[in-house]
Amino acid sequence: MVINGQHFQTIWVDRNNREIIKIIDQQKLPFEFSIKSLKTFDEALLAIKEMTVRGAPLIGITAAYGIYLAVVNFNSNEDFSEYFFRKCAEMKTARPTAINLAFAVDEMQKSLTNITNLNEAKAVALKKANDLKQLEIDYCSAIGDYGSKLIEEISAKKNGEPVNILTHCNAGWLACIDWGTATAPIYKAHQKGIKVHVWVDETRPRNQGSKLTAFELQQENVPYTVIPDNTGGHLMQHGMVDMVIVGSDRTTRNGDVCNKIGTYLKALAANDNNVPFYVALPSSSFDLNISDGLTEIPIEERDSDEVKYIEGKGGKVQIVPDGSPIVNYGFDVTPARLITALITEKGICEPMVEEIEKLFAHQ
Amino acid sequence: MVINGQHFQTIWVDRNNREIIKIIDQQKLPFEFSIKSLKTFDEALLAIKEMTVRGAPLIGITAAYGIYLAVVNFNSNEDFSEYFFRKCAEMKTARPTAINLAFAVDEMQKSLTNITNLNEAKAVALKKANDLKQLEIDYCSAIGDYGSKLIEEISAKKNGEPVNILTHCNAGWLACIDWGTATAPIYKAHQKGIKVHVWVDETRPRNQGSKLTAFELQQENVPYTVIPDNTGGHLMQHGMVDMVIVGSDRTTRNGDVCNKIGTYLKALAANDNNVPFYVALPSSSFDLNISDGLTEIPIEERDSDEVKYIEGKGGKVQIVPDGSPIVNYGFDVTPARLITALITEKGICEPMVEEIEKLFAHQ
Repeated sequence: MVINGQHFQTIWVDRNNREIIKIIDQQKLPFEFSIKSLKTFDEALLAIKEMTVRGAPLIGITAAYGIYLAVVNFNSNEDFSEYFFRKCAEMKTARPTAINLAFAVDEMQKSLTNITNLNEAKAVALKKANDLKQLEIDYCSAIGDYGSKLIEEISAKKNGEPVNILTHCNAGWLACIDWGTATAPIYKAHQKGIKVHVWVDETRPRNQGSKLTAFELQQENVPYTVIPDNTGGHLMQHGMVDMVIVGSDRTTRNGDVCNKIGTYLKALAANDNNVPFYVALPSSSFDLNISDGLTEIPIEERDSDEVKYIEGKGGKVQIVPDGSPIVNYGFDVTPARLITALITEKGICEPMVEEIEKLFAHQ
Repeated sequence: MVINGQHFQTIWVDRNNREIIKIIDQQKLPFEFSIKSLKTFDEALLAIKEMTVRGAPLIGITAAYGIYLAVVNFNSNEDFSEYFFRKCAEMKTARPTAINLAFAVDEMQKSLTNITNLNEAKAVALKKANDLKQLEIDYCSAIGDYGSKLIEEISAKKNGEPVNILTHCNAGWLACIDWGTATAPIYKAHQKGIKVHVWVDETRPRNQGSKLTAFELQQENVPYTVIPDNTGGHLMQHGMVDMVIVGSDRTTRNGDVCNKIGTYLKALAANDNNVPFYVALPSSSFDLNISDGLTEIPIEERDSDEVKYIEGKGGKVQIVPDGSPIVNYGFDVTPARLITALITEKGICEPMVEEIEKLFAHQ
């Protein structure tokens, strides 16, 4: 998608030096647009941990390139496979919740099995990371195609009024490579000329909604309004939301959706007001090994300083009194029963084990 | 309650000059404790509008003293009754949602009917404002007595573990005169030696939870933890909340509760997880003339700059991109069906018209 009219993706291989990976520094958005270079495994790991890159699909692809950088920088006397497996294991610990991280690392690991020649390993790792990246782009584009039809159907009943879509956090192209997951249907609908308007949840504590989703939509000229996270219920009670679309960091085989903390509250409100609640996700965000989201998905607890301080244009200020205990859970789980349907690159399905299995069987 | 170990109320008549009203400047808390003088009607009106004082009961009492100050400063050639009625009408427009404002102004108006002597009017207005203030203190204290029994009952089942209470916004003593509404049961339980722990919703956009409720609880040594507004659902899903207690800006005759935006989302989560959801309110917060909260209570829409900028220790920063549309609704309505019971100074009752009428009939 575009920033200042120019097309960007969130991560790419440097044109002049294929051993450098470039990323958009998402900590600095929306007030500063800055590109960062990753030259080592450790830099990629840190970019994920410190959320210079974030969003489940992008975390996965950054991890893949991080593994590639580990291969690039291998120069010890250590056994290559041992080193490689250690790096893969280390990368998997970068963040606990998004399953895409494990998925991408596993894919990298599989592709390099039995390769011992270092130059070949480098080439294979780079190709695999590039392929995974292209796959995520294709997935998001397909999600957009399927999802935009849902928006079109609602639009047809609105007599020229815009379709009001609420989204939480940033499951936009900045969370992916391009298009986004939750935003892909919105961008595709907008490009088709369907009138849309997006309610952008601020998404405390890191404000990925007001900082990233608002920025994205503004750059693409999609109409939107920023709201505090507390507002969605009130809007739904007053008929001001036609549909909700969010992303997912991990979805179980029965359709329980783990996503940014606060998603569950919006799903409850949607359910209470008969507003359809959609989750848009690529197959890399499914964890088909587990079926109970509430008990089986590890919920990341992040640093309390993310709540205590807030950064913006003008600096950083403290907004909680000194000495106040704070907890900062990153995610919550929305039970499948509250979800209308899952929008995937393979099609749209109900959040039920049979439907999800059918979807995956089609591959 | 106490600030730095010294007992304070939120509003009082200056000891040395009864024509000056003193308030705690709540815009500056928790990082600066400052006391402000109100000498005129306009200063009282502005204090309400700009939220130097806030919270439904305190808005009411400040309005009462504002009317008193209008009487004090009457010196025109205008007809006193005309002037007085005009000031009363003007005060009622200060903020639209909290019914306590209209209640207090009406009470002031009634008490001054037929009084034409200015000195008598001054004395009567001061006495009435003082009486209304004392009534609010008594109400909150009684709410605390009734409500603390509910906490005690839960505590009895917790084998010495603290009772985890979630609250939204600040319905503490800073929102009232003393004790608070939602916090009164907590303070009374704490003083009885019952172990409590409070989950304090940050309460965007003005952060009255992290700025005021956290400050209050810290000053009273009540254990608490600050959480982003998005967190409550997750905590309830994991059995980490035993009860919710919130305040109310206006409650209809059938028990629909209007309170700070986001309350409805917490009520949905409580309902979904079988967590009892209580609303603590004095009778001055009931509006027995209306019965449908969703359609009949005016919801204040506040300045978008409250969302766009945030103030804290270290200054003020911008957290939403330039040119982003923002909406900022102050309140939402929680339907009676989601509420376990109302805790009032008259007793505890179910949120049903028959029960509420019975409660008021006892007076």
